[in-house]
Parts: sequence; structure tokens; C-alpha cells
Amino acid sequence: MEPRIDILTIRAEDVAAATRYYVDRLGWRPILAVPGEVTFIQLGHAQALSVYAAAGFDADAGGPLASPFTLGHIVESEEQVARAVDEMVGGGGTLLKPPQRAAWGGYHAFVIDPVGCCWEIAHNPGWRVASDGTVSLQSVEG
Amino acid sequence: MEPRIDILTIRAEDVAAATRYYVDRLGWRPILAVPGEVTFIQLGHAQALSVYAAAGFDADAGGPLASPFTLGHIVESEEQVARAVDEMVGGGGTLLKPPQRAAWGGYHAFVIDPVGCCWEIAHNPGWRVASDGTVSLQSVEG
Repeated sequence: MEPRIDILTIRAEDVAAATRYYVDRLGWRPILAVPGEVTFIQLGHAQALSVYAAAGFDADAGGPLASPFTLGHIVESEEQVARAVDEMVGGGGTLLKPPQRAAWGGYHAFVIDPVGCCWEIAHNPGWRVASDGTVSLQSVEG
Repeated sequence: MEPRIDILTIRAEDVAAATRYYVDRLGWRPILAVPGEVTFIQLGHAQALSVYAAAGFDADAGGPLASPFTLGHIVESEEQVARAVDEMVGGGGTLLKPPQRAAWGGYHAFVIDPVGCCWEIAHNPGWRVASDGTVSLQSVEG
């Protein structure tokens, strides 16, 4: 498994307030926004910050997490999701949500590291990174 | 302020367990390790994961945070720390720790975003990024 965070997702009680702050005030580029639900924002090269409404965040992970954020690792196929999960669990991680179809249309799993930090391993067919590091994201329906 | 996370710091009750997991089991490259205190691990291009012992993490931020992680944004000078903090606070962020000398030898400040997520803005003279994205980090004494 490569040492790589593609998406940092933070749990937000108020997505609109967070979006105003990062996009309108700091001037960071929104990649995709679903009002009241989620805003994806470009971070540096090939990375995204996701501000995710609390209800959606909790439902996606399958329940409240000890920490209000997840580290997202994106891979190219469902098989690679399973492989990364095997490696993390074999290394001492705790499986929270086994590999499965995601409500947002992709395929994912959640594993907790020994510190309590939650990783999402995902195959997201809508995730694209241009050669200059610009991320684009299309909604995929489940 | 550029949209960039250079260091993701997670608060760890057991740094040794986290280090074994990420370095020994997943095979990720340690950049700098101070046993029982902190381990920095290379993440993708030009980025680091920092597993920071709870006591040090809390002391560094000046007190317990609502979220057990910080997003680190590294800049080139003390003046740039002040400028980024001004921008964040002007945009609606909450100043937690004003710009000041850090115990680890650099210069830093902490600002909370509207969601409750904590950013550390730091000038770290020991932080180096090679052209291939490899991070190195030297201890700097305060």
C-alpha cells in the first residue's frame, strides 16, 4: 500500500460555513459542491479536502468515529481496495466497514489504525487527476 | 494562503504502536523518529504524517483540541506565518495560539477553522523537500 492521502475528509456540522471560509474567504478552488452535504476543495498537488456534513459522514463510515476526520486513499479498482484492506488489517488495523459498494456510487472500506485514526480505502470512478495535479470529481450514482 | 497541507499530525496515546504499524508493517518511510515522542513518516509527494504523543501534542497546541489532529501548513519565514494567520482569522477562523517561538525550535501559530478543525501555520527551519518530493527534517533546538 502506497503512503498516500488523496482526500482528507473532515466532519462538519455546517458545510456552508466551512465552504464560505475555504472557498470565499481563503480563495481555495472548489472541485465539487453539493450544498448542505459536501464540498470538495483542491489541496496542493493531486489532493482534496472534503468538508462533509455530519449526518453523511457518520452514515458513510457506518457509525460515529472516535475522530471527526478520515484519511482517504484512492485506488484503481475494487480488487485494490480489498488488497489494501488486507494489508492494513494484517498489519494490526481494525476493520470498521468491510469492502462494499458505497452509497455515493464507488466501492470502499474503512480501517482504523492503532492510534484510532480512520482510513477510507476507495475506488472512485469519478476521481480524476490531471498531470498538473488538478483534481476533478464527477458524481457517480450508486 | 496556498491550499496546501504539508504535515498531517495525529494525536497518539501510543507512538510506538503507531510507528510499528506504519513503518514496520505497512513499510512506509520514517523521516525522523524520537522514540515515545513523535514519528514523522513520508506521505506521497512532499508531505508528512506526524504521529505525535498525546502529551506533546496537547502542549504544542496550548491545550486539548476538539479534534485529535492538526493540519500543518509550512511557510518560509516568520513573517509568512503572521500573514497566513491574519488571512485565516480575517476569513473567520479563531486564533488559538498567536504566532510565537515553538518549543521544537521553529515559529508557529494555531488557528481553528469554522468546523473546529485546527491548522498549524509553521516556519520550520529543519523542513526540507527534495525535487522528487522526499521530505527530510532536522531537529532544531528552541
